[in-house]
Amino acid sequence: MARWEPNAPQRLAAAALDLFAEHGYDNTTVLDIAQRAGLAKSSFFRHFQDKRGVLFGEDLVAEPLTAAIAEAPGAATPLEAVARGIDALGQHVFTPEHRAFSIRRRSVIEAHPDLREREALKGVSLTESIAQALARRGVPDLTARVAAELGALALKVAYERWSEADSTQEFSDLARQALSDVRAGISAV
Amino acid sequence: MARWEPNAPQRLAAAALDLFAEHGYDNTTVLDIAQRAGLAKSSFFRHFQDKRGVLFGEDLVAEPLTAAIAEAPGAATPLEAVARGIDALGQHVFTPEHRAFSIRRRSVIEAHPDLREREALKGVSLTESIAQALARRGVPDLTARVAAELGALALKVAYERWSEADSTQEFSDLARQALSDVRAGISAV
Repeated sequence: MARWEPNAPQRLAAAALDLFAEHGYDNTTVLDIAQRAGLAKSSFFRHFQDKRGVLFGEDLVAEPLTAAIAEAPGAATPLEAVARGIDALGQHVFTPEHRAFSIRRRSVIEAHPDLREREALKGVSLTESIAQALARRGVPDLTARVAAELGALALKVAYERWSEADSTQEFSDLARQALSDVRAGISAV
Repeated sequence: MARWEPNAPQRLAAAALDLFAEHGYDNTTVLDIAQRAGLAKSSFFRHFQDKRGVLFGEDLVAEPLTAAIAEAPGAATPLEAVARGIDALGQHVFTPEHRAFSIRRRSVIEAHPDLREREALKGVSLTESIAQALARRGVPDLTARVAAELGALALKVAYERWSEADSTQEFSDLARQALSDVRAGISAV
């Protein structure tokens, strides 16, 4: 029996973030990460499939995002429903307390192709989750895919601005601005 | 000195496609791929960084796509310029002779997470290339990103339909239809 390991995924992610920043992704092993987190190597593989997965383990984004899309008023347009989802992230995930961690995480991910690759896959599956959440509201397939791509772009732009080192604005304000910028883009394409 | 190896990347990709379909991605080594292609293992690494790269080596898509965007008439809207780029792919890349290969390649990629992950990264960088090609036409940043996401979606939809096993339509016709579907989606989001 494994002993109880409170917050093991979070501890492993925090340890990995430190080690990737200190020694580089290539020079850090799964064993290093487990040891820094005070856990066994086998604990790592209970929570993550491989080294590149350690910063993407707890998917905090898809669940609240799609839940808020489902709960948006019936009269909301597809993009309004997605806006509710993005707003929920500002309230529950991308909070001010989370910003310093997100800035560090982002710079570590951008520094290594394996992590950028995993991030790309996560982006694709998040966009698919948004499209599926819209489809469950009865939005036709192609419209749902268009709204999902546009919503994912607004989310990405807001996240980029929020995780700039000198940013001080709250995520929800940046998300509203990004959505408005994307809407302006739509009318100009 | 390496001896001259005509079409080495194409031969390696064709060998890999066969082996992944026959034995599965996990059961195929880089050495297996090189041997099947009649080449040395060192040749493989002259052309590809890793096993997952072998089906993504020769990037036939980004260059003609962005070249056609650059050459679109000055009066073309961003999405019209992207439509020119997608149309160029139907003429030079996604030709009827290429369809059988594309169908096999797509089913092999969808069967393994490593290949889906590399495909996701390629999709992200293709979208960035489209946005940059539009920015070079003087399109403002956010508008370029919106048009790039929408164009990449139309390309993806057209490619999905073209590489269905029972499809008989030409890529250019499917691309026009996909762009029209995406435009209908835009007005409904």
